[in-house]
Amino acid sequence: MRLSEYFLPTLKETPAEAQIVSHRLMLRAGMIRQASAGIYSWLPLGFLVLKKIERIVREEQDAAGCQEMLMPTIQPAELWRESGRYDDYGKEMLRIRDRHERDLLFGPTNEELITEIFRASVKSYRALPKLLYHIQWKFRDEVRPRFGVMRGREFLMKDSYSFDIDFESAKRSYNKMFIAYLRTFHRMGLKAIPMQAESGPIGGDMSHEFAILAETGETGVFCHRDLLGFEVPGDDLDYGSDLQPIVDKWTSLYAATDDKHDTAREPELGEALVKARGIEVGHIFYFGAKYSKPMGAFVTGPDGAEVAVEMGSYGIGVSRLVGAIIEASHDEAGIIWPEPVAPFAYGVINLKADDPTCTDVCEKFYRALGSDALYDDRDERAGVKFADMDLVGLPWQIVVGPRGVKNGTVELKSRKTGESEEMSIDSALNRVTG
Amino acid sequence: MRLSEYFLPTLKETPAEAQIVSHRLMLRAGMIRQASAGIYSWLPLGFLVLKKIERIVREEQDAAGCQEMLMPTIQPAELWRESGRYDDYGKEMLRIRDRHERDLLFGPTNEELITEIFRASVKSYRALPKLLYHIQWKFRDEVRPRFGVMRGREFLMKDSYSFDIDFESAKRSYNKMFIAYLRTFHRMGLKAIPMQAESGPIGGDMSHEFAILAETGETGVFCHRDLLGFEVPGDDLDYGSDLQPIVDKWTSLYAATDDKHDTAREPELGEALVKARGIEVGHIFYFGAKYSKPMGAFVTGPDGAEVAVEMGSYGIGVSRLVGAIIEASHDEAGIIWPEPVAPFAYGVINLKADDPTCTDVCEKFYRALGSDALYDDRDERAGVKFADMDLVGLPWQIVVGPRGVKNGTVELKSRKTGESEEMSIDSALNRVTG
Repeated sequence: MRLSEYFLPTLKETPAEAQIVSHRLMLRAGMIRQASAGIYSWLPLGFLVLKKIERIVREEQDAAGCQEMLMPTIQPAELWRESGRYDDYGKEMLRIRDRHERDLLFGPTNEELITEIFRASVKSYRALPKLLYHIQWKFRDEVRPRFGVMRGREFLMKDSYSFDIDFESAKRSYNKMFIAYLRTFHRMGLKAIPMQAESGPIGGDMSHEFAILAETGETGVFCHRDLLGFEVPGDDLDYGSDLQPIVDKWTSLYAATDDKHDTAREPELGEALVKARGIEVGHIFYFGAKYSKPMGAFVTGPDGAEVAVEMGSYGIGVSRLVGAIIEASHDEAGIIWPEPVAPFAYGVINLKADDPTCTDVCEKFYRALGSDALYDDRDERAGVKFADMDLVGLPWQIVVGPRGVKNGTVELKSRKTGESEEMSIDSALNRVTG
Repeated sequence: MRLSEYFLPTLKETPAEAQIVSHRLMLRAGMIRQASAGIYSWLPLGFLVLKKIERIVREEQDAAGCQEMLMPTIQPAELWRESGRYDDYGKEMLRIRDRHERDLLFGPTNEELITEIFRASVKSYRALPKLLYHIQWKFRDEVRPRFGVMRGREFLMKDSYSFDIDFESAKRSYNKMFIAYLRTFHRMGLKAIPMQAESGPIGGDMSHEFAILAETGETGVFCHRDLLGFEVPGDDLDYGSDLQPIVDKWTSLYAATDDKHDTAREPELGEALVKARGIEVGHIFYFGAKYSKPMGAFVTGPDGAEVAVEMGSYGIGVSRLVGAIIEASHDEAGIIWPEPVAPFAYGVINLKADDPTCTDVCEKFYRALGSDALYDDRDERAGVKFADMDLVGLPWQIVVGPRGVKNGTVELKSRKTGESEEMSIDSALNRVTG
């Protein structure tokens, strides 16, 4: 994309309303614009990151055998009356009345709706197990929305639901999602720690939340040092194999957020205790028949008896991750995108847009890189270009200036390390397209 | 995907509430399930088609130089008061009050929000032209929602917005979208006719709607026969070139929906008049300063004077297209997907799932085709399998039975023509993977 044509409204001033660094940087880098309190438009640069994150989440859900579908944003109140949550949910639920005075709501989560779909379609244990997911905008009417997309009212979430005939099978589904989550965050360049969790308003017996480590994170994380070095299952993982040993290993060591941290455990952990900051980005629950029983989602078991289906639900905050990744990866000058989620891998900086040789070389890189490159072809001072490129945080900068070009060289600079290498134009072309 | 594992709840009975063929077939083929009147969940098969359509729409928008972003579903009422449409819109607008008693609404369209984003970010003509789009769920609270996804309340729409400094430039943006639309529908295997249109509640001076031809279409279409044979611009199209001649050609001949049809034109058209049925799937508008003026979206022109930006908007009904394509392509037995939007290109039918040789051959095809294949590996009668495969309408069926396999052959059958060819297993494998 040519910056001269791109809709990238960066801001010079730091917006006063933004209290945390990801919110500030997303506004400054022209990624989002607030439409209303806690509700954002995703401008082209922010949208690209959102889609890259969504794609990784999707690929890992698919790999784990989860089937994608899409439930609507608006749900009928009746369903939530069946589960008993319509009254329980309180003011966070955005309640709506349509033109015929029917009660609707903007879904904050989808346990009821997926249970209704399941009960209408599946009657026998032979169709089990099933793992279904969708990636959809949800709404929680927070009292004080803040922190940008980290705690917005309208937010994009991936939620999966598992359906099994018994506990053993439900545990296998749970383990699949547990491992899919490890892989998902790892692929985004994040260090995620699974921690035993309260199940909250979803309810349930077995639950883990996944926090990624970030110095500016919202919650304290206390965990055994060895957890940070555990290997994440690779592409050779077979989801059909026994996953229990992997889950057992990852849950064998102490890990807790500050509200659940047990200081009595500290002496025993000693030197191994890590105190860090984290951001919750995923949460998985097993809740058995909590919804299937009141809502009548029964299947016939192998013995002919009717059984309430065993369920679990599994969430990842997709839009939240955009902010969380920035919290985990930035510096004074701006964002530092991990390569897998970067909106563009390369920024091509033309230091002298009115110099035909510089422009020729830049065009060469831009043609070779295509949609992997953001090309700053503007007629602006070098300082402005460097500042903007550092702000939007692309992993690699290709700096093309008149002096270098005269010698047949360009500079290839890492946004993360700041290290810069002068290379011949051809070697640089080979390196970035290799 | 193996049918034994796929969440594909097909129905044997025709649902009584479905009045049109696409609604009936989408319910029967397990593509959708109603969540509430006019609000649907997209089950995995329906979701795949929705995503294929969305991808074609996206690729053609990108090719035309339109930049993707994403605006939220919920919008503040204030913005619609600025344009004057908050009161005009009537009961079709889903109005919401949040916990702080602020007026919100579920967006039926996005002219106000995009104008607000533009006015906050762009101050000079040098940033123009700009074409921005998003693909987002919208809501219109229809009095009597019906016809399934063809006239749902929650629906997926692609809407683009153009921003130009003057009419000449705005016309170029309009022409880009005009041609992108021709290409988009053509790529889906549809015959689309652009027709001069009323601009309705969007307002504006220049407007075309695009109707695809379908025997069961909702509206009458009257047009000159030659329009049906006009060539759609190919991949070699340069959107930077003068597009006016192409648009002039496509708008040179008579075309009108029944409500605008002028019977006085019939004698002059004579034999050339085609009377057909159609479905509106796209609508493009130029509306100048209708929103930019009241909302204060001004830019500085080359002469330093402030100019209200010239705008247009361009919609495609993405979820509606799923139904529209079925209306245009089906038979008694079920759906007939055009290849570019088919959920899977191939259905592999194992006529004897307990025969190891049949299963071996089927597995070979399934491995080779990967996500292009839906493999019916169920322990069901051949009749059930044929009926289900015809119902879901995949373009090609690979029929593997014990008799053929003994002779080293399988059958390759076209869903559209019904023609079937017996081939050696290897030739069939080569054909479908070539």
